[in-house]
Amino acid sequence: MTDAVDAVDCADAPVIDLNADLGEGFGRWQLTDDEALLSVVTSANVACGFHAGDPATMRRVCELAAERGVVVGAQVSYRDLAGFGRRAMDVPPEELADEITYQIGALEVFARAAGTRVAYVKPHGALYNRCVHDAEQAGAVVAGVRAAGGALPVLGLPGSRLHEAARNAQLPVVTEAFADRAYTDQGTLVPRREPGAVVHDPDEVVKRAVGMARDRAVTSLGGRRITVAARSLCLHGDTPGAAVLARRVRSELTAAGVRLRSFA
Amino acid sequence: MTDAVDAVDCADAPVIDLNADLGEGFGRWQLTDDEALLSVVTSANVACGFHAGDPATMRRVCELAAERGVVVGAQVSYRDLAGFGRRAMDVPPEELADEITYQIGALEVFARAAGTRVAYVKPHGALYNRCVHDAEQAGAVVAGVRAAGGALPVLGLPGSRLHEAARNAQLPVVTEAFADRAYTDQGTLVPRREPGAVVHDPDEVVKRAVGMARDRAVTSLGGRRITVAARSLCLHGDTPGAAVLARRVRSELTAAGVRLRSFA
Amino acid sequence: MTDAVDAVDCADAPVIDLNADLGEGFGRWQLTDDEALLSVVTSANVACGFHAGDPATMRRVCELAAERGVVVGAQVSYRDLAGFGRRAMDVPPEELADEITYQIGALEVFARAAGTRVAYVKPHGALYNRCVHDAEQAGAVVAGVRAAGGALPVLGLPGSRLHEAARNAQLPVVTEAFADRAYTDQGTLVPRREPGAVVHDPDEVVKRAVGMARDRAVTSLGGRRITVAARSLCLHGDTPGAAVLARRVRSELTAAGVRLRSFA
Amino acid sequence: MTDAVDAVDCADAPVIDLNADLGEGFGRWQLTDDEALLSVVTSANVACGFHAGDPATMRRVCELAAERGVVVGAQVSYRDLAGFGRRAMDVPPEELADEITYQIGALEVFARAAGTRVAYVKPHGALYNRCVHDAEQAGAVVAGVRAAGGALPVLGLPGSRLHEAARNAQLPVVTEAFADRAYTDQGTLVPRREPGAVVHDPDEVVKRAVGMARDRAVTSLGGRRITVAARSLCLHGDTPGAAVLARRVRSELTAAGVRLRSFA
Repeated sequence: MTDAVDAVDCADAPVIDLNADLGEGFGRWQLTDDEALLSVVTSANVACGFHAGDPATMRRVCELAAERGVVVGAQVSYRDLAGFGRRAMDVPPEELADEITYQIGALEVFARAAGTRVAYVKPHGALYNRCVHDAEQAGAVVAGVRAAGGALPVLGLPGSRLHEAARNAQLPVVTEAFADRAYTDQGTLVPRREPGAVVHDPDEVVKRAVGMARDRAVTSLGGRRITVAARSLCLHGDTPGAAVLARRVRSELTAAGVRLRSFA
Repeated sequence: MTDAVDAVDCADAPVIDLNADLGEGFGRWQLTDDEALLSVVTSANVACGFHAGDPATMRRVCELAAERGVVVGAQVSYRDLAGFGRRAMDVPPEELADEITYQIGALEVFARAAGTRVAYVKPHGALYNRCVHDAEQAGAVVAGVRAAGGALPVLGLPGSRLHEAARNAQLPVVTEAFADRAYTDQGTLVPRREPGAVVHDPDEVVKRAVGMARDRAVTSLGGRRITVAARSLCLHGDTPGAAVLARRVRSELTAAGVRLRSFA
Repeated sequence: MTDAVDAVDCADAPVIDLNADLGEGFGRWQLTDDEALLSVVTSANVACGFHAGDPATMRRVCELAAERGVVVGAQVSYRDLAGFGRRAMDVPPEELADEITYQIGALEVFARAAGTRVAYVKPHGALYNRCVHDAEQAGAVVAGVRAAGGALPVLGLPGSRLHEAARNAQLPVVTEAFADRAYTDQGTLVPRREPGAVVHDPDEVVKRAVGMARDRAVTSLGGRRITVAARSLCLHGDTPGAAVLARRVRSELTAAGVRLRSFA
Repeated sequence: MTDAVDAVDCADAPVIDLNADLGEGFGRWQLTDDEALLSVVTSANVACGFHAGDPATMRRVCELAAERGVVVGAQVSYRDLAGFGRRAMDVPPEELADEITYQIGALEVFARAAGTRVAYVKPHGALYNRCVHDAEQAGAVVAGVRAAGGALPVLGLPGSRLHEAARNAQLPVVTEAFADRAYTDQGTLVPRREPGAVVHDPDEVVKRAVGMARDRAVTSLGGRRITVAARSLCLHGDTPGAAVLARRVRSELTAAGVRLRSFA
């Protein structure tokens, strides 16, 4: 498909990518229902061994993703198996960059073996959160991505330091939104510790996903209709019922005339 | 240089590769004198993070190796930081293969960033020893190398199961010898637990290295002159004085008319 | 209760202990249904952080066990989170002993804080299997237990090298049997790789458990009635439905007049 | 010796404890010269496996310390082998408390086996620094110490949140000073990133140590004579020449009439 045709398509139908964290088991421990989610998402954020993800799981997820045409991304993280990458760490920038590069390289070899490629990068957990505001760590992540070669797109929040750093380094940026998270009137995420931060009702999540994808809009926690410019929606994969909800989101999006397509 | 020219060169002067284990620190801990050894060896077996080797060290060793024209190889290992990869592990073959692939991929990204490539693979420690006799684990290592792509040469002992498996999988094999290890009359290494297994006298080590490289021969523990057909000599890098001895080996080899050149 | 009374009780009613592996999650990953199993078993084999088990889980399991009068044992293992302690490792005996001691100490502090004590030791996974036949590693485990003090009983298979080593070191031994594993005519476990090695039918498992506890007998894979002298039955806790099956075993044992009581 | 006698002794001669971080190797990697430092210090901060310290090393250091009458303390840390515990981590307080307890328990078993006891606790690296200002993490460390039992003294900086939390929890506190670090006019440490923060000249370090121990005073970076009330001096053990400098400090202290004695 050429860019021109793509542009015409976009004019006719809204397009969205669905991404989810996959391969987040480790050895004996399983977490994400990779098999089920890989028949829903268009982009797989594959754990690379630092917060989760062993080599065998990485290979299997890459193989399955390649088979189903799901795009593979490197879900890079702090080195913290015990904390699942959810504890912010003051990793010196040079060291952090090297850790990012390492993870991308480790995933890339499995992606290639499966006949695909690592097509983007998304930080995980505490690193993701930190890279919203921390220019130094955001810069380190971007440096690590650049060292890995291929000028990979960086998936993250609009307005984040991560995207700022990526743009400065001539890396493409892709914005994402969360159908199960509340937004402030200013269009930023309501912090998790505040009441109402997470949307638990599945119907509501599905409705918000459709609104975000089709109308580029969502209702803020304050009741205001705000714009959400996202090329991708993040679906959570590590909760019970995650795969079922993800499937509903997908089918409702399709029913609403939204085309599902990776950004990569 | 074409193969034909190379063959003529070989007729005129014996050729040998010098390899050593490098980058075997981890975070705060240093072990190998990478800087010094990289001005001696022609091939660097770079630790990939499973028995030793953190991302920052891997990057630095790759950069330095590229700068000095030293060939980079992946020194793959069991996942065992606490035991430095020296404890044999009954890793199921599929899992072992994936762990090997992971390590090669992680090193490859740093090699490329430094302007070079991973050009061969050598198992470390207990995995190396096990792959001499254990066909299953040897096969798993080779499967892991193949999955990494590029049909990388496998460096090891002649007659090992590792080489047998590599040949069966159409991977090139490269044989190595140890100037500081005693050999049996049959040309195999005297096991470490036996008396006289390790040659400690530096003069003797240097002499044996020259004999192995120039004359393809060494005196066995039993006093017999035996043939040693090795394309590479392994120098140990993790003992005090290792770099000094390595430099002596190199200069004596050169003085003896042996050309130092990587096999890759 | 005095020993004399206990002896009379035993004459009247068979007594058995039920043990299960608990606390086998790690950080974000959960595996065993600790809460449910702690209302079934009389002895909890608590993972100590080497194959599974993080400090928070260890504390919680100890607290819950103490609350319910369940005896706490140290489920010691090879240092192998990635392989869940299921890969045999050639750990040098001295090192293995120290690793065992470390794990017991780490659990003991949580047991004490909860108002109880580590009352026995049971090796996990590959270490358990290895200690059946390998006198050196069995001796190392026992040395590690002894160094931890308190002359803790060692739970394992009758006839194992582990029990032999424990007896030689004046440690009490406790024998266990597996209601869901097939036995040979000689009274040893049928190796897992052989057909029929594992009993999958829950009714059959319950029936065998009752037979083992009440009659000290079970039918071998060859159809023979053999004696099983076990003071404890091991229930598996890491499979779906494990807790439900465990509860059935417990209630059927009670219904059959078997008294459930820890050996410690 | 009774407190009264002790008090009289103190009136006659100043008393100081010398502490150093020991056992900071891991497996194959060595760092601190434990053997040499154990003939200098009166208190050994033994690494417990989270930033450094394997079980075999912990046992050996405890044995040697017991033999030489050196008091053993638990040098607790973030779980971060790759970063040597030098990277601050946002570990949730409950989890951090459990990690501290775990480490103390693991060391205690080796201390007991060697005929001694863990007699105090000192946080390492980034955790030490964080506990100066961060009340939440300081509180978590103290909670972890309390859970380990024995009301162990906490070694740290005067005025730190760590000491505040320890006092609130009825734990004894012991203050330390650093002879190789510059102090501000207010008696706090000059941050490492500022020029002049570290005193490199060995003569100067020795002189400052004597001044701190005998006169309870040191010259600040600003040139002012300030009071330093420390019961212990921290000697660094992980730099080349550390043991030599430590020995000089000890002999100069003795020559200056300062008595060396642990606080425990």
